[in-house]
Amino acid sequence: MNTFGRNFRITVFGESHGRCVGIVVDGAKPGMKLSEEDFAADLSRRRSGAAGTTRRIERDEPQIMSGVCNGFTTGAPIVVMFGNDDARPKEYSRFAATPRPSHADLTARIKYGGFNDPSGGGQFSGRMTLALVAAGVIAKKTVPEISFDTRITEMSGSRNRDEFDGLIDRAAKTGDSLGGIVECVASGVQVGTGEPFFDSVESVASHLLFSIPAVKGVEFGAGFGAASSTGSVNNDPIIDALGTTATNNDGGVNGGIANGNPVIVRVAFKPAPSVGIPQRTYDFEAGGMGSLTIGGRHDVCIAIRAAVVVEAAMAVAFADLMFKS
Amino acid sequence: MNTFGRNFRITVFGESHGRCVGIVVDGAKPGMKLSEEDFAADLSRRRSGAAGTTRRIERDEPQIMSGVCNGFTTGAPIVVMFGNDDARPKEYSRFAATPRPSHADLTARIKYGGFNDPSGGGQFSGRMTLALVAAGVIAKKTVPEISFDTRITEMSGSRNRDEFDGLIDRAAKTGDSLGGIVECVASGVQVGTGEPFFDSVESVASHLLFSIPAVKGVEFGAGFGAASSTGSVNNDPIIDALGTTATNNDGGVNGGIANGNPVIVRVAFKPAPSVGIPQRTYDFEAGGMGSLTIGGRHDVCIAIRAAVVVEAAMAVAFADLMFKS
Amino acid sequence: MNTFGRNFRITVFGESHGRCVGIVVDGAKPGMKLSEEDFAADLSRRRSGAAGTTRRIERDEPQIMSGVCNGFTTGAPIVVMFGNDDARPKEYSRFAATPRPSHADLTARIKYGGFNDPSGGGQFSGRMTLALVAAGVIAKKTVPEISFDTRITEMSGSRNRDEFDGLIDRAAKTGDSLGGIVECVASGVQVGTGEPFFDSVESVASHLLFSIPAVKGVEFGAGFGAASSTGSVNNDPIIDALGTTATNNDGGVNGGIANGNPVIVRVAFKPAPSVGIPQRTYDFEAGGMGSLTIGGRHDVCIAIRAAVVVEAAMAVAFADLMFKS
Amino acid sequence: MNTFGRNFRITVFGESHGRCVGIVVDGAKPGMKLSEEDFAADLSRRRSGAAGTTRRIERDEPQIMSGVCNGFTTGAPIVVMFGNDDARPKEYSRFAATPRPSHADLTARIKYGGFNDPSGGGQFSGRMTLALVAAGVIAKKTVPEISFDTRITEMSGSRNRDEFDGLIDRAAKTGDSLGGIVECVASGVQVGTGEPFFDSVESVASHLLFSIPAVKGVEFGAGFGAASSTGSVNNDPIIDALGTTATNNDGGVNGGIANGNPVIVRVAFKPAPSVGIPQRTYDFEAGGMGSLTIGGRHDVCIAIRAAVVVEAAMAVAFADLMFKS
Repeated sequence: MNTFGRNFRITVFGESHGRCVGIVVDGAKPGMKLSEEDFAADLSRRRSGAAGTTRRIERDEPQIMSGVCNGFTTGAPIVVMFGNDDARPKEYSRFAATPRPSHADLTARIKYGGFNDPSGGGQFSGRMTLALVAAGVIAKKTVPEISFDTRITEMSGSRNRDEFDGLIDRAAKTGDSLGGIVECVASGVQVGTGEPFFDSVESVASHLLFSIPAVKGVEFGAGFGAASSTGSVNNDPIIDALGTTATNNDGGVNGGIANGNPVIVRVAFKPAPSVGIPQRTYDFEAGGMGSLTIGGRHDVCIAIRAAVVVEAAMAVAFADLMFKS
Repeated sequence: MNTFGRNFRITVFGESHGRCVGIVVDGAKPGMKLSEEDFAADLSRRRSGAAGTTRRIERDEPQIMSGVCNGFTTGAPIVVMFGNDDARPKEYSRFAATPRPSHADLTARIKYGGFNDPSGGGQFSGRMTLALVAAGVIAKKTVPEISFDTRITEMSGSRNRDEFDGLIDRAAKTGDSLGGIVECVASGVQVGTGEPFFDSVESVASHLLFSIPAVKGVEFGAGFGAASSTGSVNNDPIIDALGTTATNNDGGVNGGIANGNPVIVRVAFKPAPSVGIPQRTYDFEAGGMGSLTIGGRHDVCIAIRAAVVVEAAMAVAFADLMFKS
Repeated sequence: MNTFGRNFRITVFGESHGRCVGIVVDGAKPGMKLSEEDFAADLSRRRSGAAGTTRRIERDEPQIMSGVCNGFTTGAPIVVMFGNDDARPKEYSRFAATPRPSHADLTARIKYGGFNDPSGGGQFSGRMTLALVAAGVIAKKTVPEISFDTRITEMSGSRNRDEFDGLIDRAAKTGDSLGGIVECVASGVQVGTGEPFFDSVESVASHLLFSIPAVKGVEFGAGFGAASSTGSVNNDPIIDALGTTATNNDGGVNGGIANGNPVIVRVAFKPAPSVGIPQRTYDFEAGGMGSLTIGGRHDVCIAIRAAVVVEAAMAVAFADLMFKS
Repeated sequence: MNTFGRNFRITVFGESHGRCVGIVVDGAKPGMKLSEEDFAADLSRRRSGAAGTTRRIERDEPQIMSGVCNGFTTGAPIVVMFGNDDARPKEYSRFAATPRPSHADLTARIKYGGFNDPSGGGQFSGRMTLALVAAGVIAKKTVPEISFDTRITEMSGSRNRDEFDGLIDRAAKTGDSLGGIVECVASGVQVGTGEPFFDSVESVASHLLFSIPAVKGVEFGAGFGAASSTGSVNNDPIIDALGTTATNNDGGVNGGIANGNPVIVRVAFKPAPSVGIPQRTYDFEAGGMGSLTIGGRHDVCIAIRAAVVVEAAMAVAFADLMFKS
């Protein structure tokens, strides 16, 4: 459902082309300084405008509707809301008849009996990640001891960052889109964070990460690489009384519990399913195969703007887990 | 914590070398036929004895302690318990001083202030997956329309199943261990299963999968491969009114919701951290680096026995999600 | 915390004199007709203006911020928000030093380290029940088969409704306040509703009811009266195959499960702690006992406006429980 | 369902005449001394044998199945199990055709489609409270700063304890049963305990209390008496900087948050529905009204043995809520 967390609990709401997108954060500590300005830095990391990002321009101005008094969190639920300015609901009506491949158009229509809001994907839009980013800002204030280093490390198979702009240009010209991998390294996670059996660091983090639209894979430390390795190579030797390890193939987590080394996660984003190239799909009106060309305004590589979303999800995971540790 | 699920809810308990390992399943439908024999097939898939598996021999006889009356589930919580026969708690005492690399020895000791049960990893043991397998048996009866095809598809980097026995023999001789990848294909998942935003099929499944000891990566459909692809290639064309797709790069899930095509997940297992080869680790008694050779009885490649555990986790995920769909 | 429910899940937010009060309803069925007008009837039952109610006048106009498209619920979270028009935050500043007896001034200050919003009780205000009433409207649409008959049955010890106006007048003149009892009878609750052991109808309902400010007692059927009775008198004879009972001392619930007879609950409201009569309280500035006279605008008998709140809580309880039954 | 709690989480299982009754306690602190002997005192308070209690004699020997190592809690889930020795399942078979009035026979049969275990009420039996008492023992160790004073204060309308034995004798002779009221006073509850809006002290406590079979009413402080009072009389003057109040009509809770004064709760138990006097009920086999005389072994006044159950429920509530406060 649309709420996640046990002690630091977030609830998302809104739609891509409805009135707003927003978040409720429940369980944030009282007495934290919080103002609309605090969201600016992370929101700008998610903002469109750069090469390869959508031409839909939103101001993304956060409005704190509750939970803050005189500049400090009160302990009551914090609501942050974003109005939708540049909404163009009309553009999406035909996708009911010719559902976009690899989008949620068809599954949502079946699940909700046709009552779902189809505009821009409704609640399935990447715009919902705005709410996650806002939650992440509050989460980071909750666990200030943790620092994050998050970046897109791979685009369309290339790990050479110098090539990324060229890849985007070429894809944009052909109307195609690109997949990518985002890596997030969290340093300063308290040893002991994580609640086995089911609420391991990896479990809680992946639960949140797989909520982000277009995420198709999550791995920690050596991840899938570890599956090709041997124990004698993959094991991380402990080298001091603090539990520091010589390597970090476990990505900072043992038995589901943070071991004090950086927590490392990599997240695979599929290419945005919205491409300008004609695609085949079933035409429910015609009752046979049809063709669809998606215009609209879309990202070439959503992994670019998603880096800060991944970071927000990790921050929320730690804020929820740190409670007890 | 040790409970997972909203409507089909499971709770694991027990320790590797304590009195028992067990599971509570709450929310299973009344009126399902259930007896101890029903667990036999899946338990035998997890059982040791084959090449590459531990020499610890347990009978793994399930005892249904509650929730079944006259051979049928009653609607009350079902408890299935397994006694520990071949427990040898003594063998593990020295790991408190010289924690095993890439095990939970050190993190558990810090988290629980030294009160955790160290024998065989206590609640961190792979033996806990016995409880998951039992839950999976009940989950499968809850969603009988779903069929599972689960196998180890990769061992130590090789996808050639003919090579697996040789790889195990060689690793066993050197005392080393091997990573592997388990793939699970679930057919018959009802379209609409999955509860966005946070309880997507992938979120709920990965939450459970990352609870399995030694899992370091989870991907759906094309997974990390999608990150190297382009939208025009990766998108799955819809080819009929049922939503069947020509390819299945999305692994049967769009927008977090099952789309009626097979749900495909791949799970990366790291090599078992217990190897017979001497390893370096910090010696807390000596106050400096020391060496550790792990004897005991361990699996060469845990991915072999873990296939049925992955399947059980997926079944539990579906049983919980199907409730509403 | 501020979220309740398993499948029909509500989250309240806002403050008495902040920007707004609101509710998120998650899990409401898609395809239900819903507009701002649907809230009017229940909101008017809660509205002030009648004798014995506060002179604070709020328009209480609901704004549906999300979850509704073209007049129907979409399956996405529904947010209903109410602006605060007639807020006068200044009036409450002195209660930090001289906490009002039997209010949450002091406990909130200690719990939240002084960061709680003190105006009008902040998140502890009776104004929060506006959100509950809105949730109740949506809940009732979710369980349309249930009809509710809810009224204040007792005021300040009198069960004679003809006397209520006189009681209010007299109390208003002296600046005092009155307690009362609200009874809610729910007919049409499906047999089988309720999830033992812990989610009995009474458990879930009382959990919600005791969240309503000023509620101090909850009883079902004969309630406390049953404690004075004998089994031979108190037992409800079953008189037909539908489970109809000759009496209804159990208030429609056996073993935590609805038995098909009307569910009857009575809720005791204490007198509003805000009285115009001088009261003794500790003066934290003076460091000794002081006196406090509360001006402001308050209800003489909150039970009057609370009837619809009780009904809303019951509707939410049934909407959450009906899911499985 | 059968799990309750957010951070201190309990799961009950078992049946009255099945193999066992038991509890899983998850989230108990590691390092608490715990052995089977620790349960003896509270179990003996619940034990039958005294006048007015059932003649079913159970040894009620707790077996700690997991979560304790070397005499201390480990941080893993604690399972405490009780075997059923004196089970006589046969006695209950005819209640399917002639459901006992005010029991769960009929509702359970409808809810579970006839698959519920009918013997002794199965999961609806008062025997399930054995699990709650065990959970309470662990909860009390979790919040050792709280002391409880719990007693039956009223029996069948009489508050004169000297009369209780006579009331029981008389009822036993006629085969009738008696209702009663249990009062529990908890001292030492930390100010700030309770999580508004929905997890007030009263909400969480009442949720647990109404899970106890035969509970029909719960009130805090002046409770229903407050409904007959006026604010000027009912308000509790604060008399010192610690928040001590001159009276305690609020029962130690303001705004859902403990205020440092004793938390006072009163719980109404209906008379046990099992009486030896012939009762009318619907006969499903005959298809018309029939008569039923219940033999078996039953309590005259369940409130006697229930005092310790109420106390356990309160302890569990505080253990769960104290986590954050």
